[in-house]
Amino acid sequence: MRTLYHYPMCPFSRLIRIYLSEKALEYESIQEPPWNRKKKFSENHMFSDIPTLVEKDGQLLEGWYAIVEYIEQIYKTKSMLGISHREKSETRRIITLFNGMFFADVTKNIFFEKVVKRYTGDAPDSSGIRKSIAATKTYMEHIAGLADRRNWLAGDELTLADIAAAAHISCLDYFGSVEWENFPVVKGWYTRIKSRPSFRDILQDRIQGMPPVSHYQELDF
Amino acid sequence: MRTLYHYPMCPFSRLIRIYLSEKALEYESIQEPPWNRKKKFSENHMFSDIPTLVEKDGQLLEGWYAIVEYIEQIYKTKSMLGISHREKSETRRIITLFNGMFFADVTKNIFFEKVVKRYTGDAPDSSGIRKSIAATKTYMEHIAGLADRRNWLAGDELTLADIAAAAHISCLDYFGSVEWENFPVVKGWYTRIKSRPSFRDILQDRIQGMPPVSHYQELDF
Repeated sequence: MRTLYHYPMCPFSRLIRIYLSEKALEYESIQEPPWNRKKKFSENHMFSDIPTLVEKDGQLLEGWYAIVEYIEQIYKTKSMLGISHREKSETRRIITLFNGMFFADVTKNIFFEKVVKRYTGDAPDSSGIRKSIAATKTYMEHIAGLADRRNWLAGDELTLADIAAAAHISCLDYFGSVEWENFPVVKGWYTRIKSRPSFRDILQDRIQGMPPVSHYQELDF
Repeated sequence: MRTLYHYPMCPFSRLIRIYLSEKALEYESIQEPPWNRKKKFSENHMFSDIPTLVEKDGQLLEGWYAIVEYIEQIYKTKSMLGISHREKSETRRIITLFNGMFFADVTKNIFFEKVVKRYTGDAPDSSGIRKSIAATKTYMEHIAGLADRRNWLAGDELTLADIAAAAHISCLDYFGSVEWENFPVVKGWYTRIKSRPSFRDILQDRIQGMPPVSHYQELDF
């Protein structure tokens, strides 16, 4: 059986879970907090290895980039990167925007302040959290611009661009850190992706002792 | 002519410059500071579009991920991702580590404090710079572990894993922010990649009014 090692509030893990579900590829799910893992996948043992996917034949894929490019090459049904070079480039541009810039500007800090500090017992830095939420504005406006003129973010079809953006935003939304009232177009796009069967699993994630905001699971919020 | 829009102290731009040189693909080089660009490549116009490569036929490639995967697919001579699935996955794991985690933990802050603040006139936050430099330790030890047991970071041949790691580290080295004395194995690996013709261009980069540390350009440092 294919096995995915992941952590519920890790945006890269969420990206892969939604992606595998869209590709209709089943897997055994094993949760591993990135900061304290039981499993050493290889001699590497870096935090870059969540999510890790181990294929049935033992093929080890550490990190979202290795997983996505391998799976797209092996399982060609329903391309999630797009078909033409132009579509693929646009999808990859948007993935880089979220997995690189948005992570560095927003998700990493929110994860550290809200999740990691809960385990270390340190007090969250509320001004840091406010700064991270303020930094989402540029990205939300960018998503709005794309969603306004296209069916999905990279074009006519749902791609990994939507999945990457939604994976990061869903982590913020769990904590009520998305100012939905300011971004109605983004809310419309997010409602559509949130309603897909591939998203169900994400909406059922819970951190112990830290319930999500009331609308987190609502499809009509 | 192929055209690359880039910024000298941007690690993603450096990655692409070294990569194109290793692939022996020539390009016209145009510098664009990410925070104040003259050129709008497409209706997207996000900061994620540095580096941008425009191919001779007009194909637009915004961001390192779009560029690398397109070029590898079109120009198959001298694969820089590796040949087997195993090599490719390991290369992509290491790229993610540097372009994702290392960027968020280290390069982004150093770039902001040392480069952006020089233009905005704000005082650099020296405790923030120290924290970022301290955060390199885990990564340097990881590189040392890989370089100790392999010829190059992902295996026998030079790949984009080495190029990504060296691109980020070279940005820190410009400012003297690498504690080389603590990481002799990493220094040995970096000396080898620094000596390649593909690296020459990077070593000649200069920020106006901010010369690099004296050893920046030295091959024997």
